[in-house]
Amino acid sequence: MTDVRTVHVATGPGYDVRIGSGVLAEAAAASPGRRTAVIADTTVANLHGPVVLDAFASAGRDAVLIPVAPGEPSKDLATYGALLRRLASDRFGRDDAVLALGGGVVCDLAGFVAATWMRGVPLVHAPTTLLAMADAAIGGKTGVNLPEGKNLVGAFWRPAAVLMDVRTLATLPAAQIVEGCAEVLKHGLLADPELSDAIASGRIAADAPEDDLIRWVAASASVKAGVVAGDEREAGERAHLNLGHTLAHALEAASGHRLAHGAAVAWGLLYAAILSRAVAERCGRPYRDWSAPVRAFLTARPVPYPPEPAWEQLEPYLARDKKARGGTRRWVLMDGPCAPYLADDVPPDVERDAWARFRATVAEVRRARGTNGGDT
Amino acid sequence: MTDVRTVHVATGPGYDVRIGSGVLAEAAAASPGRRTAVIADTTVANLHGPVVLDAFASAGRDAVLIPVAPGEPSKDLATYGALLRRLASDRFGRDDAVLALGGGVVCDLAGFVAATWMRGVPLVHAPTTLLAMADAAIGGKTGVNLPEGKNLVGAFWRPAAVLMDVRTLATLPAAQIVEGCAEVLKHGLLADPELSDAIASGRIAADAPEDDLIRWVAASASVKAGVVAGDEREAGERAHLNLGHTLAHALEAASGHRLAHGAAVAWGLLYAAILSRAVAERCGRPYRDWSAPVRAFLTARPVPYPPEPAWEQLEPYLARDKKARGGTRRWVLMDGPCAPYLADDVPPDVERDAWARFRATVAEVRRARGTNGGDT
Repeated sequence: MTDVRTVHVATGPGYDVRIGSGVLAEAAAASPGRRTAVIADTTVANLHGPVVLDAFASAGRDAVLIPVAPGEPSKDLATYGALLRRLASDRFGRDDAVLALGGGVVCDLAGFVAATWMRGVPLVHAPTTLLAMADAAIGGKTGVNLPEGKNLVGAFWRPAAVLMDVRTLATLPAAQIVEGCAEVLKHGLLADPELSDAIASGRIAADAPEDDLIRWVAASASVKAGVVAGDEREAGERAHLNLGHTLAHALEAASGHRLAHGAAVAWGLLYAAILSRAVAERCGRPYRDWSAPVRAFLTARPVPYPPEPAWEQLEPYLARDKKARGGTRRWVLMDGPCAPYLADDVPPDVERDAWARFRATVAEVRRARGTNGGDT
Repeated sequence: MTDVRTVHVATGPGYDVRIGSGVLAEAAAASPGRRTAVIADTTVANLHGPVVLDAFASAGRDAVLIPVAPGEPSKDLATYGALLRRLASDRFGRDDAVLALGGGVVCDLAGFVAATWMRGVPLVHAPTTLLAMADAAIGGKTGVNLPEGKNLVGAFWRPAAVLMDVRTLATLPAAQIVEGCAEVLKHGLLADPELSDAIASGRIAADAPEDDLIRWVAASASVKAGVVAGDEREAGERAHLNLGHTLAHALEAASGHRLAHGAAVAWGLLYAAILSRAVAERCGRPYRDWSAPVRAFLTARPVPYPPEPAWEQLEPYLARDKKARGGTRRWVLMDGPCAPYLADDVPPDVERDAWARFRATVAEVRRARGTNGGDT
């Protein structure tokens, strides 16, 4: 029997994140609904649906599995509307609940359904990917995409409980584990050097011992829980969680969304490290290099390569972020390990020079992977 | 110059409701957005759009009028999605705001857009009907309908400010004033006998002096603000605002939604009075009759008549409410003026007998209107 860890998210009211092997069996206990709508994509429904439905059946509780098509296109208003109509035709009510079983797409989509069905019903997150455990399942952000952009529509909606069953990680393709590692690495860089070292040295993998997975997933959850509890609505500190993300979103868009989010974040962290050093040099800020775990991770693991257009071609993809804040582009930078700050006024030439250094570093990573066989 | 009254809604954080003649000119001052999306149906946009846009122009602030088709069908997911895409293509951001200019449909629809655009932006309500002033503009309920039922999707989203310009009432058809009077009457019955007497004696009409309108609209807003401040999320006391509504929703559905909401509420208040007396008689509760203002209002004003099917045919339309609370049907009843309580266990035969008395009373109203010329 492996350990089960509990991370408390101290928002008001707070909620518990249970991390362990087999914790999906706690689904009925975690759901406060009279009936529970279990929303999952068809792949996850096949893999993990039976365990969850058995948990409700054993407890003598009513649960209905509602499938959606796998993939990011399901995170749209059409699927959102279809789910709401399904809840209506199945006569779900205010006393019922939604359980999101799956990756980030289902967490965000089902979370938005829970946030808005009858003006809000209880939500349980049961993330089945490392990326969703690290990111979507904690913090209460829910939403869907529009053709004009990702996550443009949504709501803050706190889950009643979160179940992270590390057994689900064993069924994940290796590429998806690597994706999740990027967000875990970010949490380590922000607040837990032991965690970023664990990522850098490849200790988080699908075939790692369950107790190790539980330890590192719990460490990542603790970092995110701490930040979210201090700033649930992203008025300040929560924006630090965007470390690496300003560039990542632009890379995803520039690739026509062929570059996966986790991979984009990993490269975004590298750019953030390079830009942090450049800003420190330009402004005379004291600086302690924090890029080592990022370089080690990118070299050791088969993170897909980013697009590398000229800076001028990348800039339009950064413009939407800019627009959203009345004309300034916001970067999350760090003066050293665990020392993040927000920078709204980075000179354009510093951004551009950092991009050139970034491209040179990508070339170094290509050479290093070629040497050590890390490239696949 | 007429008086402007301010009613504070003491939720946390609270907001002010400004009631006066010409307060639409305060639109720019009330909106905390860098830019403001003014959502209105085409009829209201023609009548009152220029005043609002002038207010922004005079203040040197940016506002964009976004029209929707008039009528309840616009309160749907398709229109909701179209509005969100319009905000996206116009590059509205987190620092911008939504102003809902119109009746209940636009307040609910634009409110839901504000609640979910980029996970929530500031909202200003500028209701232009008496019904919306009495109901939708205060309390933070937003949402849209599904084909399966009304208001099944939505969010609680507090406005930043509410502007009730009684000048807009002068442009309303008389029937819409009567509709709004039903909700105002409800507030009077719940907490302000002077207000219900004003309704009963016909003192609230489109051609009433502006200062009178301001006084009574402010009185109605005070009642609703008081209830909402005590129970924003409808855990308890706020349910009292459903006085008359359990039957009203069933009457609307049974009429194929040809019976307007306000009219249905007026008849629902009559049924609530009859049922309250019957329950008091059955259970030996002390009872003081509170039906006089309701009867006077229904007799004096041309409230359209309700459908009067056999009770057995009406019951299925009450079932959805029942379903939503795990099997019990909830009525709001009163033991006397301003003495509401929730009743979950009214015996079916008492409900049915009250329906028979209700139909007899409708017949009395028909006769009385025929006599006094009130019927049109």
